[in-house]
Amino acid sequence: MSHPLFDAHRATLDAALDALRTRAHWSPYPELPSTKVYGEGADVAGKAAFDAHLGQRFELGQPGHSDWQTGEASPYGVALEVSYPACDPEVLIAAARQAMPAWQKLGADGRAGICLEILQRLNRQSFELAHAVMMTTGQGWMMAFQAGAPHAQDRALEAVAMAWREQSQVPAEAIWEKPQGKNPPLRMKKHFEIVGRGVAVVVGCSTFPTWNTYPGLFAALATGNPVIIKPHGSAVLPVAITVRTIRAVLAEHGLDPNLVSLCVVQRPETTQALVTHPDVASVDFTGGNAFGRWLLEHCRQARVYAELAGVNTIVLDSTDSYRRMLGNLAFTLSLYSGQMCTTTQAILVPAGGIATDEGHKTYDEVCADLAQAVSGFLAKPEVALAVLGAVQSRDTLERIELADSGALGRTVLASTRIAHPDYPQAQVRTPVLVACDAGDEPAYMEERFGPISFIVRVADTAAAIALSERIVSTHGALTCGLYSTSDAVIDAMTDATLRSKVALSINLTGGVFVNQSAAFSDFHGTGGNPAANASYADAAFVASRFVVVQRRYHV
Amino acid sequence: MSHPLFDAHRATLDAALDALRTRAHWSPYPELPSTKVYGEGADVAGKAAFDAHLGQRFELGQPGHSDWQTGEASPYGVALEVSYPACDPEVLIAAARQAMPAWQKLGADGRAGICLEILQRLNRQSFELAHAVMMTTGQGWMMAFQAGAPHAQDRALEAVAMAWREQSQVPAEAIWEKPQGKNPPLRMKKHFEIVGRGVAVVVGCSTFPTWNTYPGLFAALATGNPVIIKPHGSAVLPVAITVRTIRAVLAEHGLDPNLVSLCVVQRPETTQALVTHPDVASVDFTGGNAFGRWLLEHCRQARVYAELAGVNTIVLDSTDSYRRMLGNLAFTLSLYSGQMCTTTQAILVPAGGIATDEGHKTYDEVCADLAQAVSGFLAKPEVALAVLGAVQSRDTLERIELADSGALGRTVLASTRIAHPDYPQAQVRTPVLVACDAGDEPAYMEERFGPISFIVRVADTAAAIALSERIVSTHGALTCGLYSTSDAVIDAMTDATLRSKVALSINLTGGVFVNQSAAFSDFHGTGGNPAANASYADAAFVASRFVVVQRRYHV
Repeated sequence: MSHPLFDAHRATLDAALDALRTRAHWSPYPELPSTKVYGEGADVAGKAAFDAHLGQRFELGQPGHSDWQTGEASPYGVALEVSYPACDPEVLIAAARQAMPAWQKLGADGRAGICLEILQRLNRQSFELAHAVMMTTGQGWMMAFQAGAPHAQDRALEAVAMAWREQSQVPAEAIWEKPQGKNPPLRMKKHFEIVGRGVAVVVGCSTFPTWNTYPGLFAALATGNPVIIKPHGSAVLPVAITVRTIRAVLAEHGLDPNLVSLCVVQRPETTQALVTHPDVASVDFTGGNAFGRWLLEHCRQARVYAELAGVNTIVLDSTDSYRRMLGNLAFTLSLYSGQMCTTTQAILVPAGGIATDEGHKTYDEVCADLAQAVSGFLAKPEVALAVLGAVQSRDTLERIELADSGALGRTVLASTRIAHPDYPQAQVRTPVLVACDAGDEPAYMEERFGPISFIVRVADTAAAIALSERIVSTHGALTCGLYSTSDAVIDAMTDATLRSKVALSINLTGGVFVNQSAAFSDFHGTGGNPAANASYADAAFVASRFVVVQRRYHV
Repeated sequence: MSHPLFDAHRATLDAALDALRTRAHWSPYPELPSTKVYGEGADVAGKAAFDAHLGQRFELGQPGHSDWQTGEASPYGVALEVSYPACDPEVLIAAARQAMPAWQKLGADGRAGICLEILQRLNRQSFELAHAVMMTTGQGWMMAFQAGAPHAQDRALEAVAMAWREQSQVPAEAIWEKPQGKNPPLRMKKHFEIVGRGVAVVVGCSTFPTWNTYPGLFAALATGNPVIIKPHGSAVLPVAITVRTIRAVLAEHGLDPNLVSLCVVQRPETTQALVTHPDVASVDFTGGNAFGRWLLEHCRQARVYAELAGVNTIVLDSTDSYRRMLGNLAFTLSLYSGQMCTTTQAILVPAGGIATDEGHKTYDEVCADLAQAVSGFLAKPEVALAVLGAVQSRDTLERIELADSGALGRTVLASTRIAHPDYPQAQVRTPVLVACDAGDEPAYMEERFGPISFIVRVADTAAAIALSERIVSTHGALTCGLYSTSDAVIDAMTDATLRSKVALSINLTGGVFVNQSAAFSDFHGTGGNPAANASYADAAFVASRFVVVQRRYHV
């Protein structure tokens, strides 16, 4: 009972499964925004497709449609003025439920085939999606293209492959024959059917509307569930484009497009009613602690996969590559103005300084050198504009101003505003670095989302490792880093991260950064500390999204 | 880095994995209490081992030991008078945490090897365990042997194999090499380590102290977690024997025995403090709704795997084997006096009667014939005593009396007490059958644990299927049955069970019963209806018990 799209995309699925098995580098979606790989004119056509949305009504043909909703504000100050269909959540849920049985009957293979077809189509829209991500989130172009399109598609495919792997372990049928001594054996035929838990809601975030939405969306879909996406009010367009493509592929293959719908809402109460609806069986969420904790507290009817705030740390002990270490850190702190859940917030440095290939560096020298590395890296405006992007929210601007004011510690590097020649309204800000003591916990021991980092003076390396472990265990983290030339220190930090359950990057001095993770190889989050209760994408991320319903009879 | 016990038991593990893949019949643990398979004298030695516990202190060598606790009352009226070490839960938790890192370092292979060794040892103790299960639960001998020993060991091995399968999908290391055009590739080494979520608590039940305890115990253990078992106060001995064997195997292999401990508690508050302890990362529970709901409500720091109450249903539509159908039902309702979470409670029969190979049978005839089938089956005392066992709790006796009184509907078959020649105090009771209408929902639509079943008169088959679906969706069920000669009816019931997410047994007329499930082939529970949020054993049962912690560095 093979599905033509499963056969068509089988090689891609097999390669994804192989990558998950080896965790070697792999991706079917080219990460360079180049017309050499995406085809002559792909860039121009993508930009035109994006432009064509502006000022228009974004038709999706969804049921329960009563009104049009606008309100996206671009961090680049571009007038988007797209209107989205406001649909009654109750109607969307009912329509989703109606679409579910046919999707279920398709089986794991058919669903994987459709999902892979959708991803191929989304990949072809990468330029259009990248413009939509850039203009709604404030990301720079290269990042918007990579994280917004191919890397998000990678994470989606990873979820589809993981979901298929787990489902494929359950045979569709079995003959069960139990010997009965001299009597004839008991003989039964059994059927095992994968059944999705029910309607999935995916709550999008403002900074990574595709990268953080696709894993839950495709994990839920591939395991047999309908999905309703509630995008963040300031980043709807990339999600709307995605939903339209999914609905088109579903309809083209004779499936009910209402399996996937977009739910734009105005009032928080509407979102709360949606996620606590008895028919909603899972909620995927990326965002702040306040709503995340609310979801975990109130969505008792659903499985909640939540990525919340955290305090990512790096321990500096010693290095044989001081310049490159500083350069690596400078890029990490600057990328998208630190508006990433994986950006380092607390850099823990021994009070006695660190040993380097350029001699011993005092704590104050490390502070000054890192400040200089950041400002040097961002000295050229074209580099700064491309890397920093624009600040997405007013809250982040306020946090930058607070850090700049000296209220959180001594300002080692102040944030400056860079004028954007193409987007004069864009708030482009360089990172702020604050020096403080380990005892100043109120300053650095809560997430301060944005380009705000602390260089924390800690008694010694052992104390830094212990502090890092405590930060991660109590406040959560998605990433940890270490610079050390000592095997004993590396071992101690490794043990600390095993206890606090956080991924560790050691001595990054080249083109890999602690805040970046590669699909099929790196797990994004462990699901084992307060920053996230799930991981992109381990088996647990997909296995609880479906159940197995069996029937048996004698033959 | 292979472990000698992994190598020693590799063939068993591989066979278990193969069975999980095919879901064909398989078991390494013989289910017949025969000295031909368990060895000359195994029965006598097992009985002697059991007898040796009576009236004694059950030493375990656990830390935090302050007192001895007794209190088990045998449903057979045997004086057990075993005392168990009462240990401070805080001390047990601290000791468990201390034992965890070495267990983690052993890796998935080593842990599987140790678990398989433990199971082999427990299998050799099957007679001893069977006597302990029989005398604490009231099960008949054959059932106590099978469900208490080899079948429980099967479910344990199933959990170990499933846990190993999921862990083995994560490679220990990887080389990740990303091309950089004309530049040298980015090249990293990555390590992936399986880390258990933390201390697991398994709360045992009174009727199946091993069968319902082993899956959570071994799933948690195999995935790297220490386990504290809180047995039901009336069925401690089988758990204590298990814990002692596990601790012995651990110690023999240089591991800290405090990885697994027994926690007998007197006051409910102590249990509540244990399961809500911040260091407790998972709770496995089998039992009533009251405490189950409490756990789900209060253990917010842990993953809770709960099997609760349900109302199992069978729909009678038609049959080509009336006598054998009645015989099959009679056995199902009688086995262990219905004190199973899988026993049928509501038999839904069309008001117009059913078509059979013996002609049309009216609703009243079905009631009378089923009553006769049960009393006929139990007519011989030696059969009745062997099948029924003894009633485990006073609550169940009260429920039997209530049903007998006619308060819940017309008594079709009254419960009778059978005197046990060997155990005069044993409360041996035959099933009570109550006839009622579909409208009498308060009677049959809540779990009435024990040998109490309702023959519910429903308008027609379609209404019976719809009622069954509603019962399962709202009150939960672990099993559903159907008797029908019509493909259309079978299809309709199949769809209803797919929607309500419950396993379906169709036309059981031979030696397989709706309330029995075979490890490696049948899923026990789906985890998708209110009777249970987990299944023995699907991938979800093991996948959320560990996380993957990675580290990476350039090479």
